[in-house]
Parts: sequence; C-alpha cells; structure tokens
Amino acid sequence: MGFGLCMLAKVSQKISETKMKRALAQLKRKLPGRVLTDLASRESASVDNLRISILPHAVIRVKKGAEVGVVLKLANQYGIPVTARGAGSSATGSAVPVCEGWVLDLSLLKSIKLNQYSKIVSVEPGVLTEALQTKMARYGLFYPPDPSSKKYSTIGGNIACNAGGLHCVKYGVTRDYVLGLEGYLANGAFVEWGLPLKKFVSGLNLRDLWIGSEGTLGIVTKAHLKLIPLPEKRWMGMFAFKNERSALACVSRLLKAGILPSMCEFLDRQSVDCAERLTGRSIFKAASSVSLLIIELDGSSDQLRQQKKALLEITKPMAIDHVEAKTEKASEAILKVRRLCSQAMYSIADTKLNEDVVVPIERQYDLIRYTLELKKEIGLATPTFGHAGDGNLHVHIMYNRSNADERKRAKKGIVKLMRHVVSLGGSITGEHGIGLAKVPFMKLQHSKEAIEAMQSVKKALDPNGILNPGKIFHPFEVWDHQTVDKKMPWDH
Amino acid sequence: MGFGLCMLAKVSQKISETKMKRALAQLKRKLPGRVLTDLASRESASVDNLRISILPHAVIRVKKGAEVGVVLKLANQYGIPVTARGAGSSATGSAVPVCEGWVLDLSLLKSIKLNQYSKIVSVEPGVLTEALQTKMARYGLFYPPDPSSKKYSTIGGNIACNAGGLHCVKYGVTRDYVLGLEGYLANGAFVEWGLPLKKFVSGLNLRDLWIGSEGTLGIVTKAHLKLIPLPEKRWMGMFAFKNERSALACVSRLLKAGILPSMCEFLDRQSVDCAERLTGRSIFKAASSVSLLIIELDGSSDQLRQQKKALLEITKPMAIDHVEAKTEKASEAILKVRRLCSQAMYSIADTKLNEDVVVPIERQYDLIRYTLELKKEIGLATPTFGHAGDGNLHVHIMYNRSNADERKRAKKGIVKLMRHVVSLGGSITGEHGIGLAKVPFMKLQHSKEAIEAMQSVKKALDPNGILNPGKIFHPFEVWDHQTVDKKMPWDH
Repeated sequence: MGFGLCMLAKVSQKISETKMKRALAQLKRKLPGRVLTDLASRESASVDNLRISILPHAVIRVKKGAEVGVVLKLANQYGIPVTARGAGSSATGSAVPVCEGWVLDLSLLKSIKLNQYSKIVSVEPGVLTEALQTKMARYGLFYPPDPSSKKYSTIGGNIACNAGGLHCVKYGVTRDYVLGLEGYLANGAFVEWGLPLKKFVSGLNLRDLWIGSEGTLGIVTKAHLKLIPLPEKRWMGMFAFKNERSALACVSRLLKAGILPSMCEFLDRQSVDCAERLTGRSIFKAASSVSLLIIELDGSSDQLRQQKKALLEITKPMAIDHVEAKTEKASEAILKVRRLCSQAMYSIADTKLNEDVVVPIERQYDLIRYTLELKKEIGLATPTFGHAGDGNLHVHIMYNRSNADERKRAKKGIVKLMRHVVSLGGSITGEHGIGLAKVPFMKLQHSKEAIEAMQSVKKALDPNGILNPGKIFHPFEVWDHQTVDKKMPWDH
Repeated sequence: MGFGLCMLAKVSQKISETKMKRALAQLKRKLPGRVLTDLASRESASVDNLRISILPHAVIRVKKGAEVGVVLKLANQYGIPVTARGAGSSATGSAVPVCEGWVLDLSLLKSIKLNQYSKIVSVEPGVLTEALQTKMARYGLFYPPDPSSKKYSTIGGNIACNAGGLHCVKYGVTRDYVLGLEGYLANGAFVEWGLPLKKFVSGLNLRDLWIGSEGTLGIVTKAHLKLIPLPEKRWMGMFAFKNERSALACVSRLLKAGILPSMCEFLDRQSVDCAERLTGRSIFKAASSVSLLIIELDGSSDQLRQQKKALLEITKPMAIDHVEAKTEKASEAILKVRRLCSQAMYSIADTKLNEDVVVPIERQYDLIRYTLELKKEIGLATPTFGHAGDGNLHVHIMYNRSNADERKRAKKGIVKLMRHVVSLGGSITGEHGIGLAKVPFMKLQHSKEAIEAMQSVKKALDPNGILNPGKIFHPFEVWDHQTVDKKMPWDH
C-alpha cells in the first residue's frame, strides 16, 4: 500500500509520501499520544460491519472534542482523507477508510450530561446507545431510537446514518430526538447547529443536513438530545400467521383501527424456516413455517388494557396461535426469536446482503410477493423481516461468498430488488444509509438534478473533499470486493 | 421605481430594463394568463405582516406546480429575484420582495390528497393550515402544527419558516410532520427530497435544509405530511397567579411531575393589564393584574381524568383562582382571552415588535425579570406571553411609530433583549424565522464560521442568488423602514 493510493482515484488527489509524513509528524506534535500508526490499530480501524478492509495511514483516538478541530484543520490543509469512526457497526461501509488517510476514532468521547429540568441530555459521540438508554431510564426518561446494534453502536454513528430501530413505528428515528449539534467543519472550524432548546429556527438548518450525512459534511462532537417520559408499562405478544399475506393484512387492520404499537416486527416464512431448521423445533406448536408478528404496546396500565383488548380482538381471529409475554424476561424470549431468525440465515449461506428498504405500508405484501419471485429467479434465499409499522422491511439475499455464480446471482437479485422497491414508490434505505453498499442505487432513487444539488452542498461544506471521501456519491460495487473474516463484538 | 433598483445593492445585480422586459415577455408567452403586472396585484404582493412594502415588477400566480419550474428557469437565466408567497402572514418580512423582481404567488396550489392507509397527506403549498386540520379531522386525523395565523397561513409558508404554534409542547413543530417535499431548484429543475414514506435516509437530507429556509434554497410545490390520530378528548383550564414567578414555577412543577399538556400558554401581568384596561373588566373576579396559564390536556377519557387530577393537585394550591372549560365553546372563550391580550397591546402604542425568542425552560423567569428591567430602562411596555412548555416566549416591545424617540428606544430595547436571550443560552427566533426583521441578530446567535457555512450552502443551491434575495444574511434594519397602513385579513 502506498500513500494516497486511493481505491477511488477520482475522489482524493494523490498525496505524496513526504507530505503525508510531514502532516503526521505535525499532528503528533499537536496531539501527543493520540496518533496511532501501529498495524494492529490501523487494521482494527480498517473495517466495519460491511467487512471490507482498507488500511488507513493512521488512527487518531481523540480524548477531547476540541482535538477534532485540530485534526481537521491539518487534514484540510494537506488534503488528507478523514473517516470518522464510532463502534464500526455500520452495515454499509460508511466507516471504512476507503481512500485511506486518517481514521478519526471518536469512541473515547463519552460524556453524558442530563438537564433534568428540560429533559435534554447532552452527549458526546462515543456514548453507546444502550448505555444512554439505561442511564436515562434511571431518571424515568426514555431515549427511544434503538437500532438492533444498540448495545455496541454509538450515538455519533446513529446520528451519522439517522438510525432507526424497533420502536420507530411509535417513536420515530434518531433525527426526531436531536435538538442541537456541536462539531467541526472540514476546515476545522467549530460550529453549533441549534442549541439544547425545544425550538430553534435561526438561520439555515445545517443540523439536519449533518444528520444522516455519514461524516461527509462535518464531525459531531456533541449532541443535545430530547428525552421523553419512560413508558410506565410494556406488553408484548407474538402471533403466528399462515402466511405473509395474512400477517401483513393484520398489520393493516391494526393501523386502520388506530392502534399504535410501540413495536410491530414482521418475519416471513423463510426467516422462520431458517430458525426452525437450525434448532430442529417449531417456534409454535400449532404449526411450523409460519409468518410472525411481534407486537409491543406501551403506556399506562389503562392505556395498555384498552389497547391490548382492541389488539387481541383483531389479531386473535386472524392468527393461528399466539403467546403473550407477561414479564420482561418473557418479552426478551420473544425478541430472541427475532435475533435467532436473523442469525439462523447463516445456516443457508455464509453471506448476507441486508437491504433495509422501505415501501409504502400498503405495498408491503407486494414487496414480499416480489421477494418470493426473486428467490425463484435467482435461486437464492430471500428471507425478509422488519419494521412492518413503517414499511421498512429488511430483505436479505443469502449467498456463498466463494461461489462466483452465487455472487453473480446475488448481485442480479439486489439490483432487481432495488428497482422494484423504487417502482413501488419506496426507498433504497430506511435506516442504514448509503455508505459504500448502496452507491449503485443512488441513481435509481434520485434524479440527476437532485444528486447534483446534493454534491454541490457537499462541495460547499468540504471543498477539499477530505471528509469520508468515496462515500454516497462515488461508484463502488460492493460485490466486487473481498471481505475479511473478522469477529466483531456483535457477532454470535 | 426603476428596474433592478434593489434596496440591497450588493444582493442582486442590476438588471437592465430591456432585459427585464424581455424576460417578462417570454414568461407571458410561456405561462399565458399567469403573469400580473397591474399596480393592484403588485401592491398586494409587495407586503406581508411586517408591513414593509416593496413593489415587485410582476406577480406570477401559478396554477400548477410545474409552472414554478418554468418561472425559475427563466428567472435564473436572467438573474431576476423571485420571492415566493403564500398568504403573506410572515411576521419577519420573509415574503416581502425586498429586491423587487418577481413574486411567485403559490396560493392557488391547493390540492389535498390523503392516503388513508398510511395516514400521509400530500398537499400543495397554498393549502391553508386550518383548512387542512379541519378536513383531516373528518377522518379522525390530526395535523398538529398550528401557528396563531393558522386560519390564514399556508402550509407552504409554515414549511418556509418551520412554523410552531400552541401545540408544540406536546406535538412538535412543522418539521416533525414533513416526510417528503417536491419542488424546484433555483435553476428550475424538479427535485424530490424524501417520499411519502415513514423512513427515508437515502443521500444527503436536503428536505430539512429546505424546511425553514424561507424560500431561499428552493420552492416547495408539494409536501407529504404525517398525520396522527385525532385526540379523543380535550380539556382546558385557565389559572390566575399572583405574579410571573409563581406562574412559571407552576410550569416547572408540572413538567417535573411528568405531566405533558397539549398546550401550556403563559401570559405576564403586562399582557393581562392591557386587556383589562381596554375592557374595563378583570379577567378573574378574585384579582386583577394577574399572570395567567392556559393549559390544555388531551387524550382518552382515562388519560384526561388521570392527567387532570395530577394537574389540579399541583396548580390549585399555587393559583389564586381558575376556570375550567367543560365545552369546546368554553375553551374557545379561554383562547379569546389570549387573543384579546395580544390585540389589546395596541391600546398602549401603535407598533409592536413581536420577538419569538426561546430560552432554556429553566431560565424563563430570568427572561421575564429582564423584560421588566428593560421596561424601566427604555420606558416602553414589554408585555410577554407564549409557549411556556417550550421556553418560547413572545416578548413584545410597544412603541409609537411616529415618535422618533420611542423608535430609538424600541431599537435599543430589542438589541439588548436579543443579547440577553443569547446570553441565557437561548435563540433569537423559535418559530418566525429570520426574514428581514432578525437579520441584525444573526451574528449574536451564530459564529462567523457557522454563517459562512450557511452562506456557502446558499451559494451552492442558488448560485445566481435569485431565490428570495436580501433575506437572512443581508444587512437590514427594520426600524429604519417606513411601514404601511394596510388592513390584513388577520387584523381585528
């Protein structure tokens, strides 16, 4: 690997080895003890959950927000790519330093300051999502966004991709909880977008432009997050349906009846089959190979009682069977079924394309029907589950990495899937973002003019193209790249 | 008035009379029947609720969204300023064509399409806010954002300034309900930012960048809005307190107790005094010259009962007196008190600076104390009311326009007020936006670097500076400008 040998030649200019050395030496002087250039550190920062590995020249593990400004100022001066990194749990490669350069590791920035009066918490980007939730729960407060990775993922990463999760159907996504951001522009200047206030409409709204921009427009060093009262009680039920059609018909009936679950997870028969085959047991005794809904309600005792009654009136006649969780432990057991289905997919093939597409909720069954057609056409499994209350279903295409033919078919499948999703009026991504993995589909989703407008904004805020170059806009075909076998903390 | 005689010379380049005539002739050919150049039409489009009047060269009253693209393409080619306009109820002058040019009147774009399945409504920008609410209520659905002007203001205008209102404390602001936008870039290209979907994270988020940008970055021709179930029931109470300190202490107690009112309006004694002096009657028999809280609760019967009990347990011992509204009509009567206080301010002086500042909710009383200091210092009344649940209090400075000394003192007062608000960690605007009226305070709120970043984004999306030039960033001192006496639909 030579300095500046960017995989995406057009993205970053070549930086001479001398220049890179000089920049690094300066950085080490300015931030003693923060700059790591040993192979182990670089390797560890080379890869995220997409498992494509590109070695950065250095990893900078900052301990104070202000150090981010120092790093960016120097990087901008020398034109060195900077890729911000939290836990590296991105599903799309948005934390991979695809143009090499420097990885800015924010995971040590972990302060949490709660204003109990305003119920606004100010956090640094390295705070883990679940850790924040747990801490806030002690004050009777709730930070709802909960990507599946919440045990490992950071608030910074959640903001970078505007993470969703299981509770979005009732509580919305990360963006809905961000009141203000502090951070640094590409040129190293400190900026604030909004404040820890409920309302703020002064100037152009760069706060929301930063949210979901995957570290390509600026680096967040503090976020002011809105909290809500922790729901008093929760109830969870798991319902088995003969097929996807009746499961999704049930979802429509619930929404039509004005029932607002705090979670409404759907699993198709392919997903359930994977788990049942792996364990050798049916999830429900009444029938195997069913489609599932996992529904959570929350609120006061009164609300729960009322909602549950209305819910069961609709679901019971439509479902084959169901179980109710009367304790937290029983709820956890239900959620384990969901995780099991996800993990069990690896028993069919070693690689999973996990596509977090969104369709209008009235088109969810059309999407499922299409995944079944696709399965036949490409001869690969297409197990699908996800957030049925939002139309945000995760379609998985399972293939064996070492099998060139399967790789080819998987690629064909994903391209067809994305086309179909867009033709249904849907989105190529609902909570993962673009990163590297979805770049080929940007043109399906957005017009040339819209992409040009986005790029002009990127250029305005990062004229030297140092912030996470190679992402969102630059051609990249994830299927053509070798992935690495690396055990991540969230692997089981 | 000569062509191109922009009040803000630096903003728009001079356009020759010949060029302007040629552009107008072309536009008339392309959009026959849409272009109005008669004085009455131009005068009517020259002014908004700020009441500073600048005559545009022409008013274009489009009847289809696509016509906006035609107008912008031509305007961009010729460098003609385009100011979008809905109802003209902007409090900050954001609809005033301060650089002349063309006014793009969007008030005839009024289509409303509800997807009852997804509960997403797609509306054109000319739809009136209250009309939308009323129509959606028939389907049991609720579009919460409700600026005081909602009877007259348009959705387009609400999006342009990210309007708030009375229900924000529980339901959030306009931005929280916008899922997707369609519209046109400065160069006339059609773009979509998001779709009528619950989740969408593809590409950079220009949707939220447009929201609140006051027509300076693009023109919205359609908005996909999220709706929620209409609350089953409402309850309203009005509480009288000895002074502001105890009224605001009561708000803190309520919030601390986890009570989430759907409205929490505060009125200071100066506001109440205005109304009581004008009508010659006390609002409460128990005492005159009180500070008021108007609190609304909503939800199911059970929720209301519970919340009301908890609310009254806190408020009754703290208040001098209170009334409860048991009917819609009685609630309306309470809200009339609020409107009366607002209108009655004109009995003290003929001009009102209405400053929609925000402070951290724990600093609300500090702000009130400051308005009283200010009153003494500048010798002008500073009646204040507003959304106490959000920290968004409207401070009014009352003066007589024809009195040069009062004008001077009002200006001094507003500058001091804004400095104080920012020093309290607050915002110079919570729901009105910057427009012309708040330009002088941008530098108090934002750093030089932040403003430069905003301006670079503006330049990227509108390189010729045709979209609502003269707003947000360009020096303007509202006090130095003559206002016009014009009866607006919302004047009483």
